[in-house]
Amino acid sequence: MKFYDMKMAPNPRRVRMFLAEKGISVESVQVDILAGENQTPAYLAKNPRGLVPMLELDDGTVLDESVAICRYFEELHPEPNLMGRTPLEKAQIESWQRRVEFDGVGAIASIFRNVAPQFAGHAVPGVTETTEQIPALAERGALLIALFWRDLDARLGTSAYVAGDRFTIADITAFICIEFAKWVKSTPGPEFANIARWYAEVSARPSAKA
Amino acid sequence: MKFYDMKMAPNPRRVRMFLAEKGISVESVQVDILAGENQTPAYLAKNPRGLVPMLELDDGTVLDESVAICRYFEELHPEPNLMGRTPLEKAQIESWQRRVEFDGVGAIASIFRNVAPQFAGHAVPGVTETTEQIPALAERGALLIALFWRDLDARLGTSAYVAGDRFTIADITAFICIEFAKWVKSTPGPEFANIARWYAEVSARPSAKA
Repeated sequence: MKFYDMKMAPNPRRVRMFLAEKGISVESVQVDILAGENQTPAYLAKNPRGLVPMLELDDGTVLDESVAICRYFEELHPEPNLMGRTPLEKAQIESWQRRVEFDGVGAIASIFRNVAPQFAGHAVPGVTETTEQIPALAERGALLIALFWRDLDARLGTSAYVAGDRFTIADITAFICIEFAKWVKSTPGPEFANIARWYAEVSARPSAKA
Repeated sequence: MKFYDMKMAPNPRRVRMFLAEKGISVESVQVDILAGENQTPAYLAKNPRGLVPMLELDDGTVLDESVAICRYFEELHPEPNLMGRTPLEKAQIESWQRRVEFDGVGAIASIFRNVAPQFAGHAVPGVTETTEQIPALAERGALLIALFWRDLDARLGTSAYVAGDRFTIADITAFICIEFAKWVKSTPGPEFANIARWYAEVSARPSAKA
């Protein structure tokens, strides 16, 4: 199999961190999105939306969605476990993963895609038709990310990790969210001591360098 | 356990349809969002974001996220299977489920929440702080849903169901997306014959009445 990666981007990094936690190594190819390598006919033939990351299996089957790629590896290699063991734990981890994704990563993405000059006319990932940037959506994103840091800090005041007492995919998504927030200078301030404690711990994991 | 439901709303309906497909019945309570029943101190004590649906287990544990609730029941009652059996099938179904959710339901939600008069000042679900509606976001949603119907129709031209050759949670999300689209008069037109074929089949399932 082959993993189509982009070193800088948040979603490929989620998968790299997930694989590093599991100790799985996969052959990878760097796709330079800024140079349009995700829009070549060869790439679009595999992945019509031109999204990165993508996992291509040996038989040509493609998975083009980061959490689905994680799910595939979780099912193949359940330990170390990152997505839950019991029905309730699986549901709780998925719930937190989705919450961080919608409330956190979604807020940062709405800032980034609606102000960064390189996305003028291309505000929506995976869409080739013109989509104009919406400055009001970036402003809304700034409010939403502030609320998310408040809520995440409260959660990490009563829980060692995002989804409970151990490290899971929900922590990976939250870590990526903070890394992504650096791009738009919207990281959580030092007043969020619980986030700071958790972030220091997660940053110290070898997978944080993946 | 108890399921906090709202008959009209799309996300509770996803869960009801999922449960109906599995033949599971759960005690339920209707929460009247328009009357503010999701903002009462009693509801917020269980679910601080005031979201519906919510599943409350007998020990007081709460799941407040629709796909996580589905995951819980899938793990407890794997058959009839709606989320995949093999690692690859699980990943493919999750990928399609997420795609329909982001590209389809997300587009409809961005129309609905940014134009419906009842959401003036409350454009973002689960947020009590003022969030103004953004008309440009509703316009973007109209473009995105048109692209989504095009893509969904192409998919259903080569696949019996959204995620492959059998009915799964991805079909439930896509069905709910069309039902939700009725609210903003953005349903797929008759030119999308593959969607029409699939929609007629899914509408005829007993779970479509759930």
